[in-house]
Amino acid sequence: MTDHLDFALTLADLAAAQTVPRFRTDIAAENKDASAYDPVTAADREAERAMRRAVLDALPGHGVLGEEDGETPGAGRWRWVFDPVDGTRSFVCGVPLWTTLIGLEEEGTPMLGIIDQPVMGERWWGGRGLPARLRDRSGEREVRTSGCARLSDARIMVTDIRCARGAYLSADEAGRVGRLAEGGRLLRQGLDSYAFGLVASGQMDLVVEAQLKWHDVAAVAPVVEAAGGTVTDWAGRPLREGWDGTAVVAATADLAAAARDALTG
Amino acid sequence: MTDHLDFALTLADLAAAQTVPRFRTDIAAENKDASAYDPVTAADREAERAMRRAVLDALPGHGVLGEEDGETPGAGRWRWVFDPVDGTRSFVCGVPLWTTLIGLEEEGTPMLGIIDQPVMGERWWGGRGLPARLRDRSGEREVRTSGCARLSDARIMVTDIRCARGAYLSADEAGRVGRLAEGGRLLRQGLDSYAFGLVASGQMDLVVEAQLKWHDVAAVAPVVEAAGGTVTDWAGRPLREGWDGTAVVAATADLAAAARDALTG
Repeated sequence: MTDHLDFALTLADLAAAQTVPRFRTDIAAENKDASAYDPVTAADREAERAMRRAVLDALPGHGVLGEEDGETPGAGRWRWVFDPVDGTRSFVCGVPLWTTLIGLEEEGTPMLGIIDQPVMGERWWGGRGLPARLRDRSGEREVRTSGCARLSDARIMVTDIRCARGAYLSADEAGRVGRLAEGGRLLRQGLDSYAFGLVASGQMDLVVEAQLKWHDVAAVAPVVEAAGGTVTDWAGRPLREGWDGTAVVAATADLAAAARDALTG
Repeated sequence: MTDHLDFALTLADLAAAQTVPRFRTDIAAENKDASAYDPVTAADREAERAMRRAVLDALPGHGVLGEEDGETPGAGRWRWVFDPVDGTRSFVCGVPLWTTLIGLEEEGTPMLGIIDQPVMGERWWGGRGLPARLRDRSGEREVRTSGCARLSDARIMVTDIRCARGAYLSADEAGRVGRLAEGGRLLRQGLDSYAFGLVASGQMDLVVEAQLKWHDVAAVAPVVEAAGGTVTDWAGRPLREGWDGTAVVAATADLAAAARDALTG
């Protein structure tokens, strides 16, 4: 697993070489879907291609699932899952909170993950049997989730609660998330996967999401779990590909249970 | 004015020396107001004290208005306005988008401003008769607002649209802002004054706010105006101390007019 981690860290550097030079310079965006604004930059595509090529060259038999170019099936038990630029809205607005997500699964189970923000040089990583670590301007260190156990104490992140038209949430989901958020200590919106890293290192306590894709979470769960946190769907089940797209990512099991009660009550 | 700018830039460095070492380490927060979560960190207080002391020592007769310790009246036409940590919620969540705001007024008119994000080393500044400049990882350069003139093309920032209880907006204001946001190209929330800098350098196009304080805007208007943008209240008037707390900060006059129409229609 340590060898795979070392390799994964080189993938993050390959992605950064494609994304960072395009940040705040290449903001041409395409619409993948005419019904929703979903910018995809050259950074996104080129970073995924660089990582995919590196895996296929170096690790015969490994598969790759990427947000942009889909699946390259492998012959064995290992598959890499990439979201080269999670938070493309932040990217096109010049906000350096987008991240590159790199996950590794063994027979469908997320084993290893990296959450990388290369403009700021911030990187969280961790996996099964490995500690969670953060490298930022203060150096590199092992990190743990906070001990927050009560909703009323929680620093909460949700992507976007809007009344009229939820960009990410249905009206029912937005109502549930909004009620939950009212009960927390403070609320931030729109941080995308950067917030998962902050939960791992104890700066935030709870992230509640819905309508996620597998590439949004495959890299995240191993990092948060290695840091002592919990990652489930709104019903408390572990996330597996094909799940319902909901997520509760919490610093502690008690906080996760309180959040699920609030969401489903 | 250039001398004052040089001095203002040294103030930003003084503030950074107090804020950056406390980021992600000192998250003890106090409640100034039991009815609303309003964390004030040691960073906030110490940064303001350092800047106030520097002004009073170096510039006899200049006044100071700070978010934390209020007003030290001056004897002349000049007053400095400080918000040492704008975005304290971001600060306590480990999100490096809080800013230090430094403004200089001449007889009540904002003349010079700095928006500084010292963790990332990003700093916008500008003033009357001076260009707007940005220093970030790509170096230092003159910046301009985007040419965005239509609401449907605009990348919009608002602090927080919530249905049930507006942290910053009344229900009526939240409804108006929400409807405006629906018509834009994309929406970000919770960026605080960092978004004003992004308008100045052309990454965002429009910020709509209400319930602002003077220290939230005194530093911002000179930067955005120096970059070619416009800063008014929702009725189109220039911002003056004691105004109604609303703001439309736009890349172009046409976009500002469209936003005001949408807000008041």
